[in-house]
Amino acid sequence: MLKNDLFLKALKGETVQRPPVWMMRQAGRYLPEFIELRDKYDFFTRCQTPELAAEITVQPIRRIAPDAAILFSDILVVPQAMGIEVLMKENIGPFIPNPIRSMADVQRVYVPDIQESLGYVMDAIKLTKEMLNDEVPLIGFAGSPWTIFCYAVEGRGSKSFDMAKGFCFSNPVAAHTLLQKITDTTILYLKEKVKAGVDAVQIFDSWGGMLSPVDYQEFSWKYINQIVEALADLTPVIVFGKGCWFALGEMGKSRASALGVDWTCSARNARYLSGGNITLQGNFDPSRLLSPIPTIKKMVHEMIDEFGKDKYVVNLGHGILPNIPVDHAKAFIDAVKEYGQ
Amino acid sequence: MLKNDLFLKALKGETVQRPPVWMMRQAGRYLPEFIELRDKYDFFTRCQTPELAAEITVQPIRRIAPDAAILFSDILVVPQAMGIEVLMKENIGPFIPNPIRSMADVQRVYVPDIQESLGYVMDAIKLTKEMLNDEVPLIGFAGSPWTIFCYAVEGRGSKSFDMAKGFCFSNPVAAHTLLQKITDTTILYLKEKVKAGVDAVQIFDSWGGMLSPVDYQEFSWKYINQIVEALADLTPVIVFGKGCWFALGEMGKSRASALGVDWTCSARNARYLSGGNITLQGNFDPSRLLSPIPTIKKMVHEMIDEFGKDKYVVNLGHGILPNIPVDHAKAFIDAVKEYGQ
Repeated sequence: MLKNDLFLKALKGETVQRPPVWMMRQAGRYLPEFIELRDKYDFFTRCQTPELAAEITVQPIRRIAPDAAILFSDILVVPQAMGIEVLMKENIGPFIPNPIRSMADVQRVYVPDIQESLGYVMDAIKLTKEMLNDEVPLIGFAGSPWTIFCYAVEGRGSKSFDMAKGFCFSNPVAAHTLLQKITDTTILYLKEKVKAGVDAVQIFDSWGGMLSPVDYQEFSWKYINQIVEALADLTPVIVFGKGCWFALGEMGKSRASALGVDWTCSARNARYLSGGNITLQGNFDPSRLLSPIPTIKKMVHEMIDEFGKDKYVVNLGHGILPNIPVDHAKAFIDAVKEYGQ
Repeated sequence: MLKNDLFLKALKGETVQRPPVWMMRQAGRYLPEFIELRDKYDFFTRCQTPELAAEITVQPIRRIAPDAAILFSDILVVPQAMGIEVLMKENIGPFIPNPIRSMADVQRVYVPDIQESLGYVMDAIKLTKEMLNDEVPLIGFAGSPWTIFCYAVEGRGSKSFDMAKGFCFSNPVAAHTLLQKITDTTILYLKEKVKAGVDAVQIFDSWGGMLSPVDYQEFSWKYINQIVEALADLTPVIVFGKGCWFALGEMGKSRASALGVDWTCSARNARYLSGGNITLQGNFDPSRLLSPIPTIKKMVHEMIDEFGKDKYVVNLGHGILPNIPVDHAKAFIDAVKEYGQ
């Protein structure tokens, strides 16, 4: 039994004393203890070594004490497991030397054996669960098929992923074939994570907001929803679509347990657009953690007032930035714990 | 008298046979005749030589015949005129060697004499008007103060302009001082453009969508609205805020003649959010011009059906991409002209 089950209660829509809080990328570069490990081990070593991934996962639990842990990993371990070479380049970020640009490329991509290719993630989950000692729940995650597709086709990060979109619009059959392979892999992957012990999963659709509402349904939501359907009976599923305010209506009718929203969508708009019944998660502007601490605390309390304390998980609207002082991050978490006291 | 006044009619909300059409960045890299000039003259030479700017402006009028011309220039000529050095770097884009990072930096920035520093723009306008020979109206433009501020502080393009936002949140007094200087300059600049002969102006808020609704009011809209108020009696003003769907309500109550929307905001949402009475402009996904021509034409007709033919200016939801075939761009324009025939 979890000692702190606030997060799972909020995902079920149960009444809580105060909303739970965690932060996207809470295991990350704003923490000096993370930087220490980062300087010793390269990116994929950190992901692929269960002891390192588990240690990094629990670092923020010790330091700032959020109500949930999220396994340290990366969304790009999935395309890597599918036979797409992924590098992490200094100052560039993810880099795919041979991006997918044709049906022939798509056909070389395969749905892998998860234990064989991603067993290290399951080992990290088991180890993390031991280290967490039932203090807080553990979240597992995956990128949305569309977001993985964006990297696989574009070959690197982009402001607008025009190449990935161009591939969809000029070669839709190949695009859908690749999206389905990513979806099939992701379903198998997340099911294994649940078996290994995660208490909930989150799907990150970081680049869904690049698509029009109609194209979003066709190239992103359709596939996310397959994952939601496949997982909903096994674990709570959170869908976070950055910039996807326009799709909250459709998402709200799905079997997802909660929807993440970014800071451009006010609480009022998010409740209205999502139908008002589903748990929402978000949406503090990560840059706003650069405000003075009293401002942060005031804004967090206003945010909770606006979303309401129930059916709500406090979070940032995207990942925490590397340049946030640790005491500002802690003030964010503390502000939630102080709410209503 | 303009021979084709469809665009100005739509801005006034008058009934039209079909909506007018133009494309953001229609004078740009998808045109081979533009590439020819680009290979001969560097970026700021093209902006600062009236003969070149005028020639580039009319190139798309000859080639694809939209219903309005937009003066070839760049939003960064404004900070350049304010004493901020701006370079255009290969593969990087705009680059500011000494970005603004303190109140001392802000104080070195000045509101310039427009004729002295930006007289070349006025010369380009006069020359372009002659070359256009009253065929179609000419649009002048400026960046929004927030968007100029983003470049001035960040020093270059960015996915999220976290540094610019961090500056606002940690040093709001300096931020507002700079935003006001940019606003004052922009008002003077656009007034001179109107005197020189432009028939309408557009304000590009390319990075407004990085802000929360509350911060948008404080750091972007407040300043855009000063410009709208200062110009509204002189010329029609279009405000285009990329990703700023959440601010359409406020914008719709202003004295702007039209609001630009991007492709993430459906026609239905845009009409609802803006209040339903103001002319809207947009919002074809630029990547969608990579679709086959029959698909483009079908989608354009559906888009007009959704927005309605009146109080509407057909456009893309952002600038045309460099890799769009010219015949696809022309199909976009032609589809509008064929509407309802």
